[in-house]
Amino acid sequence: MAKIRGYLLDLDGTVYRGERLIPGAAEAVAELRRRGRRIVFLSNKPLYSRRDYAEKLTRLGIPTPQDEVINSSLVLARFLAREAPGARVFAIGELPLLLELCRAGLELCEDPERIQYVVAAFDRTFDYRKLNIAFQALKRGARFIATNPDRTCPVEGGEIPDAAGVIAALEATTGRKVELVLGKPSEHMVRAALEVLGLSARECVMVGDRLETDIRMAKENGLIAVLTLTGVSSQEDIGTSAWKPDHVIESIAELPALDRELNERR
Amino acid sequence: MAKIRGYLLDLDGTVYRGERLIPGAAEAVAELRRRGRRIVFLSNKPLYSRRDYAEKLTRLGIPTPQDEVINSSLVLARFLAREAPGARVFAIGELPLLLELCRAGLELCEDPERIQYVVAAFDRTFDYRKLNIAFQALKRGARFIATNPDRTCPVEGGEIPDAAGVIAALEATTGRKVELVLGKPSEHMVRAALEVLGLSARECVMVGDRLETDIRMAKENGLIAVLTLTGVSSQEDIGTSAWKPDHVIESIAELPALDRELNERR
Repeated sequence: MAKIRGYLLDLDGTVYRGERLIPGAAEAVAELRRRGRRIVFLSNKPLYSRRDYAEKLTRLGIPTPQDEVINSSLVLARFLAREAPGARVFAIGELPLLLELCRAGLELCEDPERIQYVVAAFDRTFDYRKLNIAFQALKRGARFIATNPDRTCPVEGGEIPDAAGVIAALEATTGRKVELVLGKPSEHMVRAALEVLGLSARECVMVGDRLETDIRMAKENGLIAVLTLTGVSSQEDIGTSAWKPDHVIESIAELPALDRELNERR
Repeated sequence: MAKIRGYLLDLDGTVYRGERLIPGAAEAVAELRRRGRRIVFLSNKPLYSRRDYAEKLTRLGIPTPQDEVINSSLVLARFLAREAPGARVFAIGELPLLLELCRAGLELCEDPERIQYVVAAFDRTFDYRKLNIAFQALKRGARFIATNPDRTCPVEGGEIPDAAGVIAALEATTGRKVELVLGKPSEHMVRAALEVLGLSARECVMVGDRLETDIRMAKENGLIAVLTLTGVSSQEDIGTSAWKPDHVIESIAELPALDRELNERR
């Protein structure tokens, strides 16, 4: 078995909750880095840029350069830039996603006759006008992709509707199915993360709080799957889930101990 | 077999298309009325009041009082007024629906903690704010009903997203299913129509252009089902549909001849 050399860390529910770091997170990350482990942070949220995330982590006590953060809008923009360079794209999404697409050389477009790709994303500015533009483009044969599959996004004191609402509204009205969803648990997210780390899947551990995204992605892509109990999924949820973690930790604070244990066996 | 004494006529695609009467529609309706047949017009659209529909029919050449028109917002408002008089309701819908609810004595409410019923409807002013209010109310246990199940609404030169988009967005984000949809093909629509006519189902004919709403509703509720080919469903669609009409006519202009044929057999 290969030594463990890298960690993919989910952000919300794993490293922090809202504006508060999970206790011990800064020390755990610092200790792993001291041991030479490479770390990349992952988020499914297309609401912020990787720079925003890097700044937030740094501000909360985990100094992080922006190229050690991957989120779904970045992965989607890179996918489109590779598959369909310069394509005309209409995105139901917020400004940071639009800027990401623009930076990737794609052409933002609102004319259903000319749109080649419709992107469904988490969008707190979603409205009927956007729904109808996307609908008309999809009826005319545009491709249909999405940033992330999440039903809801946790916020202070609860949760709010996420990208699944936009995807479902388009699927129900057009009769079409979304063709590709780029965020966790997709392989595209893993590939982007491993590229940043410069490691192979079997040298890496994925740590996250959601069985159906974080743990599923790890298990489907040959990573060691670690569930942390500081977020959405609980110990009890494991029993009814199709996705079983390889290890369960109470919080990210236990990660240095798990790292030692894993590497002693190898 | 009972004599045929009443007709339930779908509007868009059956009596008119957009602002144009189907050729022969005015004459057919006048002839049926001359024979003493009672007529009620049905629409799934919650965008207009029954007065709007009556005025449009009258303007196009079919003089009609407003109580001979039934649409999904009226049926929904009456249902709520009966089942939960004075209930606190949040509707994702346009002004005519809100006014209908208000006239029925319901309390319009935007506070998720207090909302008892969430109503999903066709709404060209749908936005994330409304989606989130409905989402929060549904997460807190509010009932979940809808005006109509249509995926799309035909408009001049094409179609636009209908209530199915709103229903799907709420279902996908809350994980709940809509409990009741009031418009065609629901029995509530039939009951409201028969009440207006003062007739029983077996004395009535339903004429419409959609197999999955008009014809389905007729077959499930003991009405004679007549498909007219001036709208959405075609002769070929019948083969693949679960809902088979009892009779097919090229257009509503053939209705007086069919009425004679049906009554001669009885």
